[in-house]
Amino acid sequence: MARDPKHDVLFETVKIGPKVTRNRFWQTSHCAGPGAERPGAQAHLRGMKAEGGWGVVFTEFCSIHPEADEYPFTSARIWDQGDVANLSYMCDIAHRHGSLAGIQLWYSGGNAPGLESREFGRSPSQWLSPIFATRSVYGYEMDEADIRTVINMYVEAGKRAAQAGFDILEVSAGDDTLPTQFLQPRFNQRSDKYGGSFENRSRFLIELLQALKRALGGHCAVTTRFEIDTLHGPEGVEAHEDGVRVLESLRREGVVDLVALKIGDYAEWGEDAGASRFRKSGWMTPFIKQGKSILGPDIPVVGNGRLTSPDEMVALIRAGVLDIIGGARPSIADPFLPTKISEGRVEDIRECIGCNICVSKFQQGGQIMCTQNVTIGEEYRRGWHPEKFPRTASPCSVLVVGAGPAGMECARVLGSRGYIVHLREAESELGGHWRFVSTLPRLSEWGRVITYRQTQLSKLRKHVEVHLGVGKMTANDVLQYGADRVVLATGSHWHGDGRGANYGPIAGADDTLPHVLTPTQIFRGKSVPGDRVLILDGDGYFMGITLAELMANQGKQVTYVCDAADVAEYGMFTMEAGNNKRMLFEKGIKIYSNHWVDRIEAGKVQLSYLFKFGPDLLAPGSGAVPRKDNGGAFELKVDAVILVTSRYSENGLWRELKSRKSEWAANEVQDIFRTGDSKAPAQLNQAIWDAHRLAREFDSPHPAYPLPWIRERQLWGSPTIPRLGDPRANVDEP
Amino acid sequence: MARDPKHDVLFETVKIGPKVTRNRFWQTSHCAGPGAERPGAQAHLRGMKAEGGWGVVFTEFCSIHPEADEYPFTSARIWDQGDVANLSYMCDIAHRHGSLAGIQLWYSGGNAPGLESREFGRSPSQWLSPIFATRSVYGYEMDEADIRTVINMYVEAGKRAAQAGFDILEVSAGDDTLPTQFLQPRFNQRSDKYGGSFENRSRFLIELLQALKRALGGHCAVTTRFEIDTLHGPEGVEAHEDGVRVLESLRREGVVDLVALKIGDYAEWGEDAGASRFRKSGWMTPFIKQGKSILGPDIPVVGNGRLTSPDEMVALIRAGVLDIIGGARPSIADPFLPTKISEGRVEDIRECIGCNICVSKFQQGGQIMCTQNVTIGEEYRRGWHPEKFPRTASPCSVLVVGAGPAGMECARVLGSRGYIVHLREAESELGGHWRFVSTLPRLSEWGRVITYRQTQLSKLRKHVEVHLGVGKMTANDVLQYGADRVVLATGSHWHGDGRGANYGPIAGADDTLPHVLTPTQIFRGKSVPGDRVLILDGDGYFMGITLAELMANQGKQVTYVCDAADVAEYGMFTMEAGNNKRMLFEKGIKIYSNHWVDRIEAGKVQLSYLFKFGPDLLAPGSGAVPRKDNGGAFELKVDAVILVTSRYSENGLWRELKSRKSEWAANEVQDIFRTGDSKAPAQLNQAIWDAHRLAREFDSPHPAYPLPWIRERQLWGSPTIPRLGDPRANVDEP
Repeated sequence: MARDPKHDVLFETVKIGPKVTRNRFWQTSHCAGPGAERPGAQAHLRGMKAEGGWGVVFTEFCSIHPEADEYPFTSARIWDQGDVANLSYMCDIAHRHGSLAGIQLWYSGGNAPGLESREFGRSPSQWLSPIFATRSVYGYEMDEADIRTVINMYVEAGKRAAQAGFDILEVSAGDDTLPTQFLQPRFNQRSDKYGGSFENRSRFLIELLQALKRALGGHCAVTTRFEIDTLHGPEGVEAHEDGVRVLESLRREGVVDLVALKIGDYAEWGEDAGASRFRKSGWMTPFIKQGKSILGPDIPVVGNGRLTSPDEMVALIRAGVLDIIGGARPSIADPFLPTKISEGRVEDIRECIGCNICVSKFQQGGQIMCTQNVTIGEEYRRGWHPEKFPRTASPCSVLVVGAGPAGMECARVLGSRGYIVHLREAESELGGHWRFVSTLPRLSEWGRVITYRQTQLSKLRKHVEVHLGVGKMTANDVLQYGADRVVLATGSHWHGDGRGANYGPIAGADDTLPHVLTPTQIFRGKSVPGDRVLILDGDGYFMGITLAELMANQGKQVTYVCDAADVAEYGMFTMEAGNNKRMLFEKGIKIYSNHWVDRIEAGKVQLSYLFKFGPDLLAPGSGAVPRKDNGGAFELKVDAVILVTSRYSENGLWRELKSRKSEWAANEVQDIFRTGDSKAPAQLNQAIWDAHRLAREFDSPHPAYPLPWIRERQLWGSPTIPRLGDPRANVDEP
Repeated sequence: MARDPKHDVLFETVKIGPKVTRNRFWQTSHCAGPGAERPGAQAHLRGMKAEGGWGVVFTEFCSIHPEADEYPFTSARIWDQGDVANLSYMCDIAHRHGSLAGIQLWYSGGNAPGLESREFGRSPSQWLSPIFATRSVYGYEMDEADIRTVINMYVEAGKRAAQAGFDILEVSAGDDTLPTQFLQPRFNQRSDKYGGSFENRSRFLIELLQALKRALGGHCAVTTRFEIDTLHGPEGVEAHEDGVRVLESLRREGVVDLVALKIGDYAEWGEDAGASRFRKSGWMTPFIKQGKSILGPDIPVVGNGRLTSPDEMVALIRAGVLDIIGGARPSIADPFLPTKISEGRVEDIRECIGCNICVSKFQQGGQIMCTQNVTIGEEYRRGWHPEKFPRTASPCSVLVVGAGPAGMECARVLGSRGYIVHLREAESELGGHWRFVSTLPRLSEWGRVITYRQTQLSKLRKHVEVHLGVGKMTANDVLQYGADRVVLATGSHWHGDGRGANYGPIAGADDTLPHVLTPTQIFRGKSVPGDRVLILDGDGYFMGITLAELMANQGKQVTYVCDAADVAEYGMFTMEAGNNKRMLFEKGIKIYSNHWVDRIEAGKVQLSYLFKFGPDLLAPGSGAVPRKDNGGAFELKVDAVILVTSRYSENGLWRELKSRKSEWAANEVQDIFRTGDSKAPAQLNQAIWDAHRLAREFDSPHPAYPLPWIRERQLWGSPTIPRLGDPRANVDEP
């Protein structure tokens, strides 16, 4: 199809200082895990976005010097010639696809945990890091020589970046990095010319950009990603106050070729990478809309906001809010988003659902994952392409049982590879339990997991037949179906007896009783009796807290109990923790963390504090925990209990088929696999990954198990950089 | 000096199947961070212990297969030939020093987060992982073919380990790995021959050991690390029940050459690696003391317990509790512990203080640190040796101001390197604020930081003069002292105005008032008025909770308030979190997490819930956070407030000296450095590291800053293993 002409504006070139980007798509710097330590993964992950049409692709946030060491969190690094070599491969691939390569220059100031370099960061004043407070992270206050030294660090890092082939040097002036530490009164108590007045607080940023411009501006674009509102009131940067003042200064001083705008600081990163549970696309617009008018026609503005709709993108450009569409998560969910718009295939866009699983893996110190695009991070190490599926050499027929997300993904990939697939679903709609999930409060965007796959399956009709409402298949049905190979994707359910991690069934927990319910039952319409409802959350991800909100929205008095130390604990990784707590407080939901339910009766439950036993160990005995019991049990009156405690695979069909393996050959069934939750309940990204992987490796010798992947790491005997005895580059002024 | 003959027993050889260890020192498998990805760091860290006399040195826990992928936590891995190559270098170094090399074979069962391999673990039954519950980690239930497959995985891993040169194959049957999942009723609900009775539940472990013995027993020692009590009562393993039964089976079946015993499961790992705040050396003895009698004379027993005293070690051997001294943390704090005992230099032992900083870094996903031995992890990458200090070529005189831990360490290392050092302390004792710390509840062992360095300084009298009680030095004193070079180690103090991370001074917080106190003031004797005391903890490590306990011990009504989501949040990394909460509950201390103090008055404070603002963002404004205020402030009556909110460097002397830099040359002062907390407040390990580093690199071109180190990582262009397209090894039975 041809591109819709109204989207043409998205494909105009934009001049950025000495460079020109081929279109208005800018893959904003985002964490992914490879850093400068896994160069193949880095290059191919970013390179895939270049291939998919993003005019600019960026590294992760990139530390400029060992003093800005975020380890154990993985930044990119441009510290030495090893980093130059590793990142230059990324630049090569970006250039091969006609994209510009950008690097975000990052100095952590007083926020560097430094657990690899063990160095200290320098900051405008000395304070306990609000990011890593309980890890005792402090920097030390810079004198004017330090300021010149750190500016030199940026310049030297910029030179290495240019050497690696980067086109755009973006200075992070957000996320509580050094430039915004100088800007914000809460971090800057200086009384010299770098503190106090706005002019003084912004001096560091201006001088830094001047130095970069002077040293590298002829060769590279010099830009900044500026946090126009830190959401901290007057102690931080407010959009209509210092926010616009900074933009005025940047324009007046002529120190940048482009400005990318964001909101929220590092501690409130979840307001920049806003999860869809709390932020709908474009939520930052009220904060950034003045930016463009201040910067004028010559300084392009990049704006983000989890934008996946080309119409919305065009509207923002037409409204003068921004010039270039920034995207981090949309580029993860669909590296080919620009190409699909360009080719008029808007319905093929795999839209980000805003679940923040991607960043949750970084927050755990790991490698990126994505619920929508499970090929992310696999481009190099497994050779996966999000849009290309190798044709199978043995195109047999495959029955896929169950059309939840895993079954849909498996059928989609198998169909794309040339298999003849029948996807059969007991219920009358696609989506499995995810249909229910996407009806819950705040989760409507999560339904894109289903709608994207539904669209793709409809385009694969030649290869995939979808049969809905066929009821549960029996083992006989499967064996006699006539398929050469079978994949079971029958999902999982919530336990009805309250068992959770560490805890067996709860006395009185029986979901056949009216006052005891599971999410599965609520999905199927079981009503919640009475006004007082208790949610028991042993899962810690979204289900417990979402049902708590659902109940509160229905006017019930809600008590939320979890065994974890914090409510919906996984929200710490998805950066929803703050807003989760704000929501619970606003809705008046009572919280008991570190508690569990001992017993459920009609009208009441008994709770216990989990740390009611004393810290001392008693002599070993038999039949009891060897600790002193200090009490700590109490009763609560409740009318209903919803058990969000743990799940089990729906695998009765699998068990029966396996026990009848001797009959497979007679029925011309070659093999049977299971995938997704029916193998093991998991986060959705993992379930979809598993299904995708199975389909992609369906003709490998042992398709039930993944093939090896490339492990990037030091091999003994391979060279190392630096070597022992290498000098430290002196960046101090003489 | 000669060895004390009563310690001779520690240096007897012990036969372990086909191998013989040269003495009774066994470096228990412990996390460190290098894994199989940083082979140089791994080899030299373990190799240093071999050099220091540990007869056996182990890897980290070592994953046998990608299904047992603990990433993002770093295990060793013996998955492929890359791992064989990397770990063989470790074995080479161990053998060079006459030690045996051990590998702990680990399969996570249902507890594998799998964030690198993305595979699922197999487990006896299916359950939500108690270790990673809120990350939705589940395995899948094994059938009998799976059991044979996983046993094959162990055997194949054992073969690779033997190929790498390992002498001892230790099967983890603790820490909630697969063998103990089979053993424990809470994880095993099977009804086949692997579930139900003790015989059935122990079958997997026995069959596994038999298979390893059969395949590799002629060449390698086959052993197990067995958790004799999981501290879960009858749902787990109890020492006097299934614990001893397992040992009886192991002896009867003749399947092991040695048994290492431990207690506590993976979730209660802090009961095995017991922090000294809760566990004194040898605390496991009541649980393990029957072990030896059951196993008989032919099966040696390894026991741990943070043992650092040779007399205690000998007593345990004489009492028949164990045969071999296991040590993880003692070997980290002092790799040369065996050598020092052997040479009769017991007073030189750098005893572990049980602070668990080492494991806290692993828990954060990073590389090991140690408060006592800051050379740990630096053996390869910086070439540091814990007992050897290169003589300086320019042995000038150095004045070190301040004899807290950083000053002492700096003086010790400078003195060892041949500098002439004067270490001057204002107070009449060594130790700085750490003297106070080690008088606080549960922290007496932390005083070893001081006593070790005191002893070493006394041995360095030829090079280090210690001047105590000299009062505070002024800038004039320093300049006129006559030293060629100066190091300031003047420490830090707690803010007296309540400022913390994210929070400025608190209204009414003024530590000149009688009812407002800081830890520094309590150290100096300021008394806490009244019965009701509130601890405000913005630090989140040990000080807040320890002062809360101190106050409770004095009979006060204690309220503990912190801004973090959990009490003493860093305890999650040191594995003290559970016992911290148990202690607070036992002592009746009231907790407000996610709160902060708004205002302090005589007799009362106002507190606020930190998430009192709504989750929605309002339009940007000026002068306020753009969120709805939902209330959430309240008053508490208290008689005193102790502010443990944040610290500041004591650096007035530094500032003055720097401002008078022009006078240095005239006073023949070449340069002046600062180190430790006076540079930036930090955890003690970091402060000591910084002081040690400065002294070690005192003659580098820019001693204020660290030299580069060897970064182990993939360099683009270097080989990788596996390569794309490599087959997966089939371990299924045909």
